[in-house]
Amino acid sequence: MTHEALKRAVWQANLDIVRAGLVELTWGNASGVDRAAGVMVIKPSGVPYDRLRPEAMVVLDLATGEPIEGDLRPSSDAPTHRVLYQQFDGIGGVVHTHSSHAVSWAQAERDLPCLGTTHADHFHGPIPVTRRLHPEEIREAYEHHTGTVIVERFRRDGLDPTHIPGVLVAGHGPFAWGPDPAAAVENAIVLESVARMALHTYLLNPSVRPIDGALLDKHFLRKHGPGAYYGQVS
Amino acid sequence: MTHEALKRAVWQANLDIVRAGLVELTWGNASGVDRAAGVMVIKPSGVPYDRLRPEAMVVLDLATGEPIEGDLRPSSDAPTHRVLYQQFDGIGGVVHTHSSHAVSWAQAERDLPCLGTTHADHFHGPIPVTRRLHPEEIREAYEHHTGTVIVERFRRDGLDPTHIPGVLVAGHGPFAWGPDPAAAVENAIVLESVARMALHTYLLNPSVRPIDGALLDKHFLRKHGPGAYYGQVS
Amino acid sequence: MTHEALKRAVWQANLDIVRAGLVELTWGNASGVDRAAGVMVIKPSGVPYDRLRPEAMVVLDLATGEPIEGDLRPSSDAPTHRVLYQQFDGIGGVVHTHSSHAVSWAQAERDLPCLGTTHADHFHGPIPVTRRLHPEEIREAYEHHTGTVIVERFRRDGLDPTHIPGVLVAGHGPFAWGPDPAAAVENAIVLESVARMALHTYLLNPSVRPIDGALLDKHFLRKHGPGAYYGQVS
Amino acid sequence: MTHEALKRAVWQANLDIVRAGLVELTWGNASGVDRAAGVMVIKPSGVPYDRLRPEAMVVLDLATGEPIEGDLRPSSDAPTHRVLYQQFDGIGGVVHTHSSHAVSWAQAERDLPCLGTTHADHFHGPIPVTRRLHPEEIREAYEHHTGTVIVERFRRDGLDPTHIPGVLVAGHGPFAWGPDPAAAVENAIVLESVARMALHTYLLNPSVRPIDGALLDKHFLRKHGPGAYYGQVS
Repeated sequence: MTHEALKRAVWQANLDIVRAGLVELTWGNASGVDRAAGVMVIKPSGVPYDRLRPEAMVVLDLATGEPIEGDLRPSSDAPTHRVLYQQFDGIGGVVHTHSSHAVSWAQAERDLPCLGTTHADHFHGPIPVTRRLHPEEIREAYEHHTGTVIVERFRRDGLDPTHIPGVLVAGHGPFAWGPDPAAAVENAIVLESVARMALHTYLLNPSVRPIDGALLDKHFLRKHGPGAYYGQVS
Repeated sequence: MTHEALKRAVWQANLDIVRAGLVELTWGNASGVDRAAGVMVIKPSGVPYDRLRPEAMVVLDLATGEPIEGDLRPSSDAPTHRVLYQQFDGIGGVVHTHSSHAVSWAQAERDLPCLGTTHADHFHGPIPVTRRLHPEEIREAYEHHTGTVIVERFRRDGLDPTHIPGVLVAGHGPFAWGPDPAAAVENAIVLESVARMALHTYLLNPSVRPIDGALLDKHFLRKHGPGAYYGQVS
Repeated sequence: MTHEALKRAVWQANLDIVRAGLVELTWGNASGVDRAAGVMVIKPSGVPYDRLRPEAMVVLDLATGEPIEGDLRPSSDAPTHRVLYQQFDGIGGVVHTHSSHAVSWAQAERDLPCLGTTHADHFHGPIPVTRRLHPEEIREAYEHHTGTVIVERFRRDGLDPTHIPGVLVAGHGPFAWGPDPAAAVENAIVLESVARMALHTYLLNPSVRPIDGALLDKHFLRKHGPGAYYGQVS
Repeated sequence: MTHEALKRAVWQANLDIVRAGLVELTWGNASGVDRAAGVMVIKPSGVPYDRLRPEAMVVLDLATGEPIEGDLRPSSDAPTHRVLYQQFDGIGGVVHTHSSHAVSWAQAERDLPCLGTTHADHFHGPIPVTRRLHPEEIREAYEHHTGTVIVERFRRDGLDPTHIPGVLVAGHGPFAWGPDPAAAVENAIVLESVARMALHTYLLNPSVRPIDGALLDKHFLRKHGPGAYYGQVS
């Protein structure tokens, strides 16, 4: 992907999370990375979505986090995105929203279990919630530490971020990612949708059990990996 | 219905489930059958709804499941639709969605009882949930077995699929059907709507009783069968 | 109101309940009455809303219920509307819907208490739920008896239908009314809205108390009756 | 802001609360104040939103509450707005709605705790609910007393209305405010959104704890006050 193509893909992802109903006001941001060029591209901070243009996307040095291009400040969540790109190999886009039901699970500090195939098609197991940040992590480099608690949770449980492409930050909300910005948007949509379904499922049956391992594997692997048979042959 | 008319009806049904708000991303598919010609027509797999055209619908041999016409792969759920057409006489269209509230009941693994006349107008009794599939049913011919557990539940309880035109597949979601693809769409809309109402009814009154048999019969039979008096004389 | 004006007002009311999101498929109907002329006007049965025209509205003799004008069958709920016009003086329009949250209360068979001023602005007390119909009331003249159980509940509790312009029919759904069809639509909108708010209020506080009598009177009477001061002087 | 600019800002705010989905029927009003000129501007009472024009906004004397300009009656809630302007220094716009989830908390008479950063970005702590009004406060100068119970609650707990820009009036609904009418609209949107998220959070985890003080401070202060770094440098 060329430099301009990445800016356009990130701009499109930022519009798409609004169109998908995941964003109120300016509560959301999408980014993309060009690992070969050592840069990430992200939405500027606090700009209304209807005034966003591809050329306003901010380009940052992936190694230092410093702006390389663009007159506007990057989204204040840029350091979180940067930690994810640095620590999670193989992800190419990140989306953060305050979508309503995913936030509710993050606020409830409950892992979102895999209760059905909608979930299993995109996430190969429960979507984890992080621990709360410590006061000192909040006071200094807060957005950076938001990334490190995400990584900590994945490392602790040996989770593969390409198989679990999202997380709930305690008391905050969801981050989702994928091989590129468009895939990150899709995973953010799925996360909100399964969060809503799971809430209602618990209200109907508080002792519901997650789906069986065989079904989880079947759905995730028919869309991902060497044996995939969903969609068209490309 | 001619061959081209069936493709158009199936295409229309696939658009209608999106317009009715039952589908996110590509989570849904509608099909139709021509029993005289021995074919079924279904949506291609993983194609965005806004790019669907009637001519892209895939025609399958009903007896073998093999594609007869069309360059695209059929929806991966085609084998489930095929089992339903083969085992349930008198149905002409099938719709599968991941509509949010119906999925929640399917994930909760609870039969959806008939709590009101909205339900009784279209379903002559509770909408059943299937058992979970066994691991071996998942690993081999999974989508085919999704159909067989549906049929198993109807056979076990002696349910008439023309009176109960829908089902909840455990840990997955709803299938609905009807005499033609448009009727299947209507039943899928009703299923989602009554699933939402029933969830809220339980929250208000956990010990709610289903409606009485006389009311169930009245509503179902005033719209279906020889004494129907709802709508216009055709 | 002239004859044609009434047909237009009823047609408009039928469109407005769809625009307000109270109706799915064809689950709703609105009517109006001209007491001087001894007629009521109602939507035809089972006609899609987007094909309705003012001239298609059906005119019935209020005394006999027989069609006077129009080629289409009246809504199957016409006998319910007729009982309400005959038994409740001072109402000029009736609306029936299957709006989701009002149906949930009707299915739960709970009176909808007055928990706030949104409710008190339009309904001067709880919105009652009827008893279930007996089997013999269902088998013969069902839609007529749906009206009589509504009237029975209002008579039993000495409720004034001009102060409580709506009801929940057990296991079925809401009816609302008002001085004219437009006012009936407004009351149907309010009923759905307060049903949703009251459900959520109970989830937050199962032991919530209704608002005090002084507040109930204040809100209802500032919009209705001789001392009204809400809106513009007409 | 000139006189005409204030009327236009208030008109815009009244349209924006409808566009944001916070208002049904005519249940909402927005106002603004010009403290130097000693006037407040508010929506007229009971006028449909689609017929509102900037010139129809009503101008009131802030000291007396009497109309200075405009042929229409002011919103019946004008005395509540006036008390807030008189008692809360530093607020320039007020919005009142009956938005569904905020009303549910007001009806449940529960303070809305700060469960996440969405809340903390705009409200520096729980959003308080007032006590019920006494009968004599309801019978005389009701709308004025609605303002005084709000102020009473803020004074009692030593709350700073510029840090907690909103309130829930028991059995009624939310008021929100801000430095100008547009900011008041934004806070009303946030209040509805966090009310919905908090309801769902409680359903998932009835014993959820509010976020930690360090996180509350971080989020509120990165958007407000001297160290703010959210958005663009203006």
